[in-house]
Amino acid sequence: MSAVLVIGAGLLGTSVGLALRRQGVDVLLVDAVPGRAQEAAELGAGRALEPVGGGGLATGPELAAAVAADGLAGEGVDCVVVATPPGVVASQVVGVQRAGIARVVTDVASVKERPVREVRELGGDLSTYVAGHPLAGSERSGPQAGRGDLFEGRPWVLTPTPDAGADAVSLVRELAELCGAVPVDMTPESHDAAVAVVSHVPHVLAVLAAARLADAGGDQVAIAGQGVRDVTRIAAGDPALWREILRDNAAPVRAQLEAVREDLDSVIRSLSAPDADGVTDVLRRGNAGQSRIPGKHGGPATPYVVVPVLVPDRPGELARLFSESGEAGVNIEDLRIEHSPGQPVGLVEVYVRPEAADELTAALRGRGWVVHR
Amino acid sequence: MSAVLVIGAGLLGTSVGLALRRQGVDVLLVDAVPGRAQEAAELGAGRALEPVGGGGLATGPELAAAVAADGLAGEGVDCVVVATPPGVVASQVVGVQRAGIARVVTDVASVKERPVREVRELGGDLSTYVAGHPLAGSERSGPQAGRGDLFEGRPWVLTPTPDAGADAVSLVRELAELCGAVPVDMTPESHDAAVAVVSHVPHVLAVLAAARLADAGGDQVAIAGQGVRDVTRIAAGDPALWREILRDNAAPVRAQLEAVREDLDSVIRSLSAPDADGVTDVLRRGNAGQSRIPGKHGGPATPYVVVPVLVPDRPGELARLFSESGEAGVNIEDLRIEHSPGQPVGLVEVYVRPEAADELTAALRGRGWVVHR
Repeated sequence: MSAVLVIGAGLLGTSVGLALRRQGVDVLLVDAVPGRAQEAAELGAGRALEPVGGGGLATGPELAAAVAADGLAGEGVDCVVVATPPGVVASQVVGVQRAGIARVVTDVASVKERPVREVRELGGDLSTYVAGHPLAGSERSGPQAGRGDLFEGRPWVLTPTPDAGADAVSLVRELAELCGAVPVDMTPESHDAAVAVVSHVPHVLAVLAAARLADAGGDQVAIAGQGVRDVTRIAAGDPALWREILRDNAAPVRAQLEAVREDLDSVIRSLSAPDADGVTDVLRRGNAGQSRIPGKHGGPATPYVVVPVLVPDRPGELARLFSESGEAGVNIEDLRIEHSPGQPVGLVEVYVRPEAADELTAALRGRGWVVHR
Repeated sequence: MSAVLVIGAGLLGTSVGLALRRQGVDVLLVDAVPGRAQEAAELGAGRALEPVGGGGLATGPELAAAVAADGLAGEGVDCVVVATPPGVVASQVVGVQRAGIARVVTDVASVKERPVREVRELGGDLSTYVAGHPLAGSERSGPQAGRGDLFEGRPWVLTPTPDAGADAVSLVRELAELCGAVPVDMTPESHDAAVAVVSHVPHVLAVLAAARLADAGGDQVAIAGQGVRDVTRIAAGDPALWREILRDNAAPVRAQLEAVREDLDSVIRSLSAPDADGVTDVLRRGNAGQSRIPGKHGGPATPYVVVPVLVPDRPGELARLFSESGEAGVNIEDLRIEHSPGQPVGLVEVYVRPEAADELTAALRGRGWVVHR
C-alpha cells in the first residue's frame, strides 16, 4: 500500500493517518471543517489537500480534482478511508467510487448495517467497498486526540458483503494490520448485534447503576466500595456522544434492552413473591455470561488467582511490590487497588496465574509484605 | 475490652475472633453446627465453648451455663457478637440479654432494619443492643475463609437506636476499631437503603449485563473490551448467596430496581421515538452519580489523570514500570491493565494526581517507555 486518502480528520481519521505515516504510506487528508485537515497534517497524519467542498462535504469530482492537483493520479490512491459521521458515510463512499479515486473504499463508522444498506440503495459498488470498524476510541475527539498507536492490538472488524472482491478485502485487511490492529471478519448485522451486547448495553446498565447514586445521601455514597466503582466507571462517558452512539445502533440495542427489562422484571417479581425464583435463574445466567468474556490475548478467560496484599499509601511502596514480584519471576496479569475510607493503607489485589500464586505469596511474605491468603 | 463471646463461627464470626485475639482479647466461640467453633478455635480465633444447643441454636440459659462452666462469670463477658444468619439474629440477641451474659450485644448481619425491629417486637432491650454491619466479605464462606485482617480499613456501620446507651455504643465502636475497621453511624433504614444503592443494585445490573453475553455468538463475545469486563466482574458472585442477600433486603432493593426500570423504559422509548430524549437525562444523571463515588481514603473523588503506557507482556516489565515511577517520586493512585486480543503487549492505564502527570510522562519517556499522551 503506497497511498491512502482519509476523508474526515477527527479522532479516527487522524489516528489512521498517524499510524499509516509510521509505515511510510503516503496519506492525503480532507475534512468538511476548514483547517481541520491542516491541523491533522501538522500533527504528522499526512498531507492536507487544498480546501475542497466549499466548507462542506466534498463531492466525488471535487475530491478527484484535488487529488489530481496534488500530483497523484486517481490510480495512485490505493484506498479511501471514509472517517465521517455514520449518517454521511454512504454518500461519500458512492461519490468516491463514481469519481474513480481509488480501487477500494472502506469506512470506520461504529455501526455497519446502515452504511452497507445505504451504499446498496444508492447504487454503489459492493465489490470494492469493504466496511470496517476499529474497536478503539477515546473519551476525547478531534485531530488533537489522534494517536498513531490507537489501534495497537485492538480488534478491527471488517464486514465485507458476499459481493466484495477478494483483492478489496485483502487490501482493507492490510490497512488494518498496518495500523497495528487485529482484523476480524463479521457480517454487518452480527457486528451491530455484537457491539450492542459487548459495549452499548453494558454502558446503559453502568449508567442506570450510577444514576441511582445521583440522589443518594452523602453518608450512603460514602460506604461505596470497589464493586460499584467498577460497575459504574464507564458511566462517566460524554452523554452527548453516547446519545448518538445508542441512536445509531437503536434496533439491536433496543432488542437487548427489552430482554434486560424481562430479566429485571423477573428479579423484581422474585423480591415481591417468595415463591417466584426468577432471580436465581438470572443470577446463574449472569455467571455464565461473565465467564465467557475473553481473557488476555483473546484466549479463553483464565481463572486467575487473586493475591491480596496490604500496601502502605506512600510513593515507592507499589513500586517495591512490583519490583519484588518481578524478582520472584512472577508475571502480574492484572490488578485492582482497593481504596479504604480514612486509612493510609490500601489493599492491592494482584491477579496471577494459579500456578504462580503460592510462589508469589511466599516471596512477598519473605520480604515482609502482609498477604491476605 | 477483655472478653467477647462470638455466636456463629462462619466467615465473619471467625474473622472477628482472629482480629480480637491479635489485640489480646479473650474470645469464646459457639456455633450451631457441631465442630465448627472448634475449627475456628484451631485457626486461632479463640476458645470453643463446650458444645451447647444440642446441635442447634443454643438458648440464652444454655449459653450462660456454658460461659459459667468455662470459668468466666456473666459479668466477665464485655460484649456478645451475634454472627448468625439474619433470620435468627433477634432471637439470639434477646436470649443473650435475658440470660445476662454480657453488658452489650451487637450483630454483624448485612441488613439492619429487620433485626432491630424484631428485637423490639420480642421485647428485647434496645439500650444494650447496638446493631452493626462490617462492609467486608469474601466470595468464600466458613471458618476456613476467616481472616484476622478482613476488616482492615473497611467501614463498619453501627445503627444504634435512640434508646441505645452511650456506653453500649462506645463499646461496640471500640470492638469495630479493635478489628481494624472504621466505625460509621447510620440509622437502620438508611443503612439498608445505602447497601441497596451501593452494593445490591449494582450487583443486579452487572448480572443483567452479563446475562446478555450468555447466549451471544462466540465471535461477538470475542470483541469484548475492558468496559464490559469491568461492568460485569462482580456478576461472577455465587447465585445462592446473592439470592439470599437480595431477599434479605427486598424492600429497599425493589424500590431502587423499580426506579431503574423507569429509567430503562425511558431509554428504550428514546430509542424508538427520535423526539423523546429521556436517554440524555439518564446519561447525565449517570455522570452525576458516578462522580459522587468517593475516592481514596473516603475523601471526595479526585479527578485523577490517566497516563497510558504500553507494557510488553513478560515478567519484570510491570515491575520495571512501577520501580521507575517510584524513582520519579510519583505516587500511583490506581491503575487498569487493558488486555488486547492476540497481542504480546498491554496498555496499562496509570492513574496519578493531575500535578504528577507531566512529570511521570517525562520520566517514563526518558527511560524509553511508550506513553500515550
